[in-house]
Amino acid sequence: MYITRRERFSAAHKLSKEEWSDEKNLEVFGKCANPNWHGHNYELFITVKGEVNPETGFVMDLKLLGEMIKERVIRHLDHKNVNLDTPFMKGQLSSTENICIAVWEELAQPIADQGATLHYIKLQETENNYVEYYG
Amino acid sequence: MYITRRERFSAAHKLSKEEWSDEKNLEVFGKCANPNWHGHNYELFITVKGEVNPETGFVMDLKLLGEMIKERVIRHLDHKNVNLDTPFMKGQLSSTENICIAVWEELAQPIADQGATLHYIKLQETENNYVEYYG
Amino acid sequence: MYITRRERFSAAHKLSKEEWSDEKNLEVFGKCANPNWHGHNYELFITVKGEVNPETGFVMDLKLLGEMIKERVIRHLDHKNVNLDTPFMKGQLSSTENICIAVWEELAQPIADQGATLHYIKLQETENNYVEYYG
Amino acid sequence: MYITRRERFSAAHKLSKEEWSDEKNLEVFGKCANPNWHGHNYELFITVKGEVNPETGFVMDLKLLGEMIKERVIRHLDHKNVNLDTPFMKGQLSSTENICIAVWEELAQPIADQGATLHYIKLQETENNYVEYYG
Amino acid sequence: MYITRRERFSAAHKLSKEEWSDEKNLEVFGKCANPNWHGHNYELFITVKGEVNPETGFVMDLKLLGEMIKERVIRHLDHKNVNLDTPFMKGQLSSTENICIAVWEELAQPIADQGATLHYIKLQETENNYVEYYG
Amino acid sequence: MYITRRERFSAAHKLSKEEWSDEKNLEVFGKCANPNWHGHNYELFITVKGEVNPETGFVMDLKLLGEMIKERVIRHLDHKNVNLDTPFMKGQLSSTENICIAVWEELAQPIADQGATLHYIKLQETENNYVEYYG
Repeated sequence: MYITRRERFSAAHKLSKEEWSDEKNLEVFGKCANPNWHGHNYELFITVKGEVNPETGFVMDLKLLGEMIKERVIRHLDHKNVNLDTPFMKGQLSSTENICIAVWEELAQPIADQGATLHYIKLQETENNYVEYYG
Repeated sequence: MYITRRERFSAAHKLSKEEWSDEKNLEVFGKCANPNWHGHNYELFITVKGEVNPETGFVMDLKLLGEMIKERVIRHLDHKNVNLDTPFMKGQLSSTENICIAVWEELAQPIADQGATLHYIKLQETENNYVEYYG
Repeated sequence: MYITRRERFSAAHKLSKEEWSDEKNLEVFGKCANPNWHGHNYELFITVKGEVNPETGFVMDLKLLGEMIKERVIRHLDHKNVNLDTPFMKGQLSSTENICIAVWEELAQPIADQGATLHYIKLQETENNYVEYYG
Repeated sequence: MYITRRERFSAAHKLSKEEWSDEKNLEVFGKCANPNWHGHNYELFITVKGEVNPETGFVMDLKLLGEMIKERVIRHLDHKNVNLDTPFMKGQLSSTENICIAVWEELAQPIADQGATLHYIKLQETENNYVEYYG
Repeated sequence: MYITRRERFSAAHKLSKEEWSDEKNLEVFGKCANPNWHGHNYELFITVKGEVNPETGFVMDLKLLGEMIKERVIRHLDHKNVNLDTPFMKGQLSSTENICIAVWEELAQPIADQGATLHYIKLQETENNYVEYYG
Repeated sequence: MYITRRERFSAAHKLSKEEWSDEKNLEVFGKCANPNWHGHNYELFITVKGEVNPETGFVMDLKLLGEMIKERVIRHLDHKNVNLDTPFMKGQLSSTENICIAVWEELAQPIADQGATLHYIKLQETENNYVEYYG
């Protein structure tokens, strides 16, 4: 059985590498390289796998899961600049793929500590684009 | 090839165990334990796996699939109380997980009788929470 | 200028009048008269009218508006039974229309106390049905 | 008859006044005052009023309307920083209200030049917040 | 008080005038003039205005309203060709505007016969385009 | 890591076999067999699997992926008649399943030429129905 919790955050970012010229950044990353930043309303889906506990009918307490995601992930991303403000993104390109992997690293162990398994993360950047990761 | 049919239902439920005190129910199930019930607009996604029939271009007739879901599942859930009115939920905690498993039990055999395979059920309780089950 | 805040709640209710027989209730209210309750995920949209404050660029602080709605309305409706648990619905049929009017009564004065004007309420019961009220 | 065109843009912004201290900005604008910016996927709805042209069955050519919105508004906002990059927002607080008014100023005359009337603008910042303006 | 019912239909159409050449049709109507038709999933919102009946808490029985819309409008549009199959569109350009006006003509009197008033129709052609009509 | 791009198209089609009588077509395909066509707003989700390139933080350039989908698939489907206008559907029943398989055939090799792998296609015909294919 799989349970999923959706959380959302609004953040600024840009895609660019310091060691590249502005021209090269613009060529590779297009309008996402705008030096003055741009931003998104991201949607984050966290899917946890486990057995249904016969005592509670739950795989995992969704309220607890939501609190873990808010404490470890959302408060570092919501109304923040992913490149400048988010500790677990320091030194990385802020592509949707890389944010997704970094969120996995933040959540896999705490979820395991609850006796369940982080199975899947989906991070939706716009209506048209999302990434998915299975660890 | 996988085909999916969405159906919806509005139902009341609460999470509580008769053998527990009100305090314990509230502690474990939070606001979902409200003794006077609460409710949701649920969305149910039923995914069937099969080969495409070269005669029809279909895995399975979606109209027939929709009728099976309505007859066996939705009419027992829509505008009902899951705890009190739904035959296939009698004696069980009405968690989203348990409803999902019970719907699987209702649909797996009838779909197999049509020569297709029930592959996956997703049950969405709110915009923020859903469960998934592969049998 | 109009600003709108969406809030959501999940609640149980039924449509029936005590002075009517079960048959009459069923005839008038259809499946909404199910004696064991049913429920919905409601979406509530509160629209406030006002001038834009040149100091802040705001018609009204949306965070304050959200807190007012949560304190006065949502905490009495979310994971509650509208017929049994909601003080401002006591003695009334819990139709979407009546809930909408009652929410208006709860919010019009507090919003006026902030120097703005409650303009419009939309209450969405399902994907297919909603009501709108201008006071 | 009213016709509406939806366009979308992703932008960074922050709410803060240079003449105020960081503390005052944080107190008034909350997390929207984050000095390192944050961002949103905005949805913009432009509604035009007019008579239906019996030759074409149209109030206005939606393709032309879409192009006007993209040329005059979206290309200055999408993947931009509203505070730093958007000519028609220079010197203003980048509240949703102020962006909405500025978009009105950009579009009212060009739409009038086509023989139609700009009637209404809705600007949605998140699932939970939007503003509306009638000029 | 206003109540709204959403119904949906899937239909084929094209925009073209018989008295015009293919070139002129293509010039005026763009890709909507494709001679072999194209189609949409339309969403239709019907808003009715009235007083709340104190007996029922309703402006109008939504089930009855839904049935009237299905009988008079949807069965002539769903899985049909608007240009060829829909009686109330004969001899007219099948623009979203014209369909909206024709639906108004079909529904205004029957709704008045129920003691309520047709107030507003919204017809959504795609995620990005819709029209609105107040009669 | 999986990345997904959504594209949309509006098309007309019908389900019917020339060698069958109208009665048989109606019996098997129901209202989808309407001889005068009907249509849909389709949503197409293309999921590509690959390693994250450490230089760019991307699995694949989404802009390039979008252009490939538009060039090879969407321009043959959008505002077209799937049965009459779409080269890669000639001689096939235009079921959602068959369109999905045909889109796979069009995209698998070009995506492989970019060093990534087409993993999954989802084709949504209406809010209630979609198909999924893994090749």
